[in-house]
Order: sequence, then structure tokens, then C-alpha cells
Amino acid sequence: MSRELFVLTYGALVAQLCKDHEADEDVNKYLDQMGYNIGVRLVEDFLARSSIKKCRSYNETADIIAKIAFKMYLGITPSVICSKESGNEFSLVLDKNPLVDFVEDLPVGRSSLCYSNLLCGVIRGALEMINLPADVQFIQDRLKGGDVTEIGITFLRKTDDKKHRRNK
Amino acid sequence: MSRELFVLTYGALVAQLCKDHEADEDVNKYLDQMGYNIGVRLVEDFLARSSIKKCRSYNETADIIAKIAFKMYLGITPSVICSKESGNEFSLVLDKNPLVDFVEDLPVGRSSLCYSNLLCGVIRGALEMINLPADVQFIQDRLKGGDVTEIGITFLRKTDDKKHRRNK
Repeated sequence: MSRELFVLTYGALVAQLCKDHEADEDVNKYLDQMGYNIGVRLVEDFLARSSIKKCRSYNETADIIAKIAFKMYLGITPSVICSKESGNEFSLVLDKNPLVDFVEDLPVGRSSLCYSNLLCGVIRGALEMINLPADVQFIQDRLKGGDVTEIGITFLRKTDDKKHRRNK
Repeated sequence: MSRELFVLTYGALVAQLCKDHEADEDVNKYLDQMGYNIGVRLVEDFLARSSIKKCRSYNETADIIAKIAFKMYLGITPSVICSKESGNEFSLVLDKNPLVDFVEDLPVGRSSLCYSNLLCGVIRGALEMINLPADVQFIQDRLKGGDVTEIGITFLRKTDDKKHRRNK
């Protein structure tokens, strides 16, 4: 399947939310929330297709998101940077963000819009379903003049806590 | 690229429109209009990728929509039925509609919703850009209890008129 139809449909969704909500912050929040709901469902599909059973570290998890999940669903492979010594903060660096393929600039008067914020929600929702709560947000965005597009993932539990995780 | 992310994002778009508009008719109209705007842009991508130069008949056009465009953007190939002797009415019959992959039923109280109406708009917009104005709508929908999902395309000009078409 080619991604143009998806990218244009996503643009229609963002435009609709901008029409509905005056504040960029609200649009960002809705995109994140929609993404979350999508991630919660998408993770099953991902686990089934990828046959991945378990990640042994945050590092491996971030790698799988970039190299398998992004590749599978968006056709790109961001590079992964472990940004802190703590070992629970990572950046996915996208040279090219397919979601903005047809977007030149942010809509007028929408300078705080996180256009692709759905992606953060998707990652957050999917991670939460496998008991890896995380904070996910854009750190840089080419649409806002950044050199690259960068998504930050901060895993919210220490690795040691993982043995205590609930089975749900 | 796998289509699950697209299908779930589309679901989020429909849910958002249902939240915004009480009447199913309004949601259908917005989906069609969004699809139209998408089709107007998608057609360039389609012509570039498919290297199709010209269709010699409505029949050939309907065939290309089903066998090349649907395949390219949705990964399915509907069958094409020429439904009238007039030669300008066609049906695309979808055994499986990927847009409803994760949808069991129409939302409660939304019995007149044309869930996948975006597709009609996309086809209409794309055809209009190549000077083939058409009326495009769902004739049957499995989500509404139809045996199959069927999209009707009625080309609005007689074949004879094609020689008069404008270059724009």
C-alpha cells in the first residue's frame, strides 16, 4: 500500500481539529489522545506481525520502535540516540517525516501546532499496553524550523522496576 | 507500508466528525468533501506513478480505478460491473473493505452514516481533475447489512462530449 492516501487523510484530520479548536495546545492534545487510542489497538497487530516476544532493555525497545515499527507502518527508519546516561531517555531522529510529505508550512497562526503529534500518542499507547509507560513528545520539528524532526521517548520506570510489572 | 495505521487513523477522523456533527448526513457530506480535496491532490501522484496517459472509454477508466488505483492505495482490487446499457454507470464491488478492518458495526444511533464516504470523494475529486466529472456514492455497504460493499460511479458526460473537454 502506498502512503499518500494516508498522509492526505491525516492532513484532513489535522485540518478538522484546527477548525474545531482554536488553541494549538488543544489540537496537540487531541492528536496525542487519538494516537494513544490507535497505539493501544495497533500494538496487537504489531506484536502479531513482528513476532517479537520480549525486549530486554529500553535500548532494545527503542531500536525496535525505530527499525521495525516505523518501517512497518510508515516506511521509514529513524535513527535512535540514547540521550541521557540514565538510560531511559531516547530520541528518534527522522530525516524525513512522511506525515508532512504534502505540507510546506504550518497553517497560518498555528505556530505551536505539533502537526505529527498523533505519532507520539501512538508510541505512548502502544508502550503502555506492554507495561512500559513513557512520556513521548516532539523535541524538534522541521516544520518549526528544526534541523531534523526528533521525537523524545522517556521511559517512566527504572529498568529494575520491570520485574514488578503487573500482568494485565 | 502496512495499512493498519491508516485504517485506525481514518477511524479517528470519522469519530471526530461524528462528535462534531449530529446528523449522519452532515458527516457523510464532510467525508465526501475531505475526500474530494484529497482526490484532487492524489490524482497527480497516481498519474505519475502509474504512467497512465489516457483512458479511451469510461469502461477503461473504471477498470483503472479498480485494478490500479485501489490496488495502489488500498491494496485491494474491487470487481467492476457496468450497470447500465448507457455505458456511463459502473459499480466497484468490494468483497473486503480495508477501511472497516477494525469496525464491527456502525456507531450507535448512526445508521445513516456512510462510514467510508471519503473514498467516494477521493474518486470524485480525482476524476474531476482529469475532466471526468462523476457522481460517486455508496450503493450498498456491508456495515449496513449489504451483501457486499458497492460504490457506484456515474460519469456525467456522454462519451461524445469528451472531445470538447477543456485543457486546465
